[in-house]
Amino acid sequence: MATINFTLDEIYDLAFNCLTQNGADKVNATALAGTIMKAERDGSHSHGLFRLPAYVASLKSGKVNGKARPTATSITPAVVRLHGDNGYAPVAHQVGIPALIEATKLTGIGVLAMTSVHHMAALWPEVEAIAEHNLVGLACTPYMPAMAPAGATKALFGTNPIAFAWPRPGKTPVVFDMATAAMAMGEVQIAARDGHSVPLGTGLDADGQATTDPNMIAKGGVLLPFGGHKGSAIAMMVELLAAGLVNENFSFEAKEGDNGDGGPPRGGQFILAMSPEIIAGAGWADHCDIFFNRMSGMDGVRMPGDRRHKNRLSTEPRKINEALIEKIRNLMTG
Amino acid sequence: MATINFTLDEIYDLAFNCLTQNGADKVNATALAGTIMKAERDGSHSHGLFRLPAYVASLKSGKVNGKARPTATSITPAVVRLHGDNGYAPVAHQVGIPALIEATKLTGIGVLAMTSVHHMAALWPEVEAIAEHNLVGLACTPYMPAMAPAGATKALFGTNPIAFAWPRPGKTPVVFDMATAAMAMGEVQIAARDGHSVPLGTGLDADGQATTDPNMIAKGGVLLPFGGHKGSAIAMMVELLAAGLVNENFSFEAKEGDNGDGGPPRGGQFILAMSPEIIAGAGWADHCDIFFNRMSGMDGVRMPGDRRHKNRLSTEPRKINEALIEKIRNLMTG
Repeated sequence: MATINFTLDEIYDLAFNCLTQNGADKVNATALAGTIMKAERDGSHSHGLFRLPAYVASLKSGKVNGKARPTATSITPAVVRLHGDNGYAPVAHQVGIPALIEATKLTGIGVLAMTSVHHMAALWPEVEAIAEHNLVGLACTPYMPAMAPAGATKALFGTNPIAFAWPRPGKTPVVFDMATAAMAMGEVQIAARDGHSVPLGTGLDADGQATTDPNMIAKGGVLLPFGGHKGSAIAMMVELLAAGLVNENFSFEAKEGDNGDGGPPRGGQFILAMSPEIIAGAGWADHCDIFFNRMSGMDGVRMPGDRRHKNRLSTEPRKINEALIEKIRNLMTG
Repeated sequence: MATINFTLDEIYDLAFNCLTQNGADKVNATALAGTIMKAERDGSHSHGLFRLPAYVASLKSGKVNGKARPTATSITPAVVRLHGDNGYAPVAHQVGIPALIEATKLTGIGVLAMTSVHHMAALWPEVEAIAEHNLVGLACTPYMPAMAPAGATKALFGTNPIAFAWPRPGKTPVVFDMATAAMAMGEVQIAARDGHSVPLGTGLDADGQATTDPNMIAKGGVLLPFGGHKGSAIAMMVELLAAGLVNENFSFEAKEGDNGDGGPPRGGQFILAMSPEIIAGAGWADHCDIFFNRMSGMDGVRMPGDRRHKNRLSTEPRKINEALIEKIRNLMTG
């Protein structure tokens, strides 16, 4: 695969210019370009520039508001409702996360209930932003149906990611951000392209039969939850928290209301924050360091988020797929 | 396996009398016998009378306070700290859950941070008690090391159950309560007792090798997380929420401080409650009914908690292992 070297600034500028040339204003393009740059910085190409054409499609179709001005409203001292003004989730986070942090520092726990957003990014940026303030962050969001509940053969759940960040004052937080599907659809498509098989349990074919052929899953089949009925229960919980509890679309409703432009559907997001300083009291960070040191010292263990955080430290330019760059430049007027 | 028929009242009375004859007072025996009866009522034998000998051992050794008087303290309008007075968790719930519900009905979200409790029961009783008040409940607790993090061959995590209940006004809530181990140690022990094998992936033997023999897992081996590294991340989250965030023992600390009497170690529990009425607003129950009807109408899907809730409806006596009854009667003075 041919690649071109891009510095992080160049990645940001490319995304920013492409978005503003396709209908986003400065506020919205800044937020989304930052999210895209951070994904490439951390080595998460599937959430980086790769998503830009779909973002542009959803701006061009008018589905997403590129000039969104999200608004946050405190319902109680611990509950913040956020209306995303039909924009992208990262724009809404710029308004909602500070309000959530403020509430949580006072009450010890807070929830940000987001509606009318379009989320197609990773979830770790929002939970890491919370952890930077020495708070615990938990976030989840539905999408459109791509995964069958355990026992079923048809899609109902989105790939329904869940992300969690635990703060370590003066250190990098411990963070996981994972689809509740056994494998993301993007990985299945890449396996299909490269002629690899996928593990049994990844998905079903169009007839509802288990298969190791990624083509059979990608074309008319469905993904399966990770870990059988237990992972399916977690995926269901994501629907309930990020749709039922925030009063937004379940994955199947998001699809019914979507225009099929390839960009992210309208949906909600659930973000929880908690203060160890208030709930546990002083000394919590030292106590948890003992646990983390014990865990990371075990043979064979890799701490969640470690690989991504190591990628982040590199000052080298990032290698970006050349065909993707050409595709993005074709979306730009000059 | 020879069994004896016991009515629910007989199960309760047997547990109550056995506990009071071994050092529990009426308040503590009432709470724990109720928990044991409810487990048998719902068909969860591994959390029923099967646990009584271990409870008795921990009373006799003096590790657990059979006369505990737990106390709840509001730290903020949304945070309740509970000190369990070194008793069993079900006794602490009788004090803590009402305080959590009261806080959550006012602020929309609340957390109960429990310390100095001994928890060896199922977790659904506490989250169902929350759901009965039309609130969402989420609970988790560590234990003693029994499960290896993904990639490791030695135990660090407890089986670290997580339970979630979603309220359905006028209907039975949707509830899951699951070990984050591929299989709970109670189930492995019962498989060993009954001479059954367990699925590959359940655990490793003492040499770190995969095995289907429950004896090899129970005696010197370790359990594995459900769903590989994703389930392992959830199990880690349980340690952080129910030990780090509540300021109590991690599983490995619980073991270091335990006297090895076979009963539950001292530990903590994390319980979260949220109000859909406040967070989502009016109409949330109807919205979620559409989702539940869609999901339960799919071929092959079993709603979480359904089997247990159906078992609950039976007015028949429950079949209890005869050898277990004899074992329990031998713990009683008359």
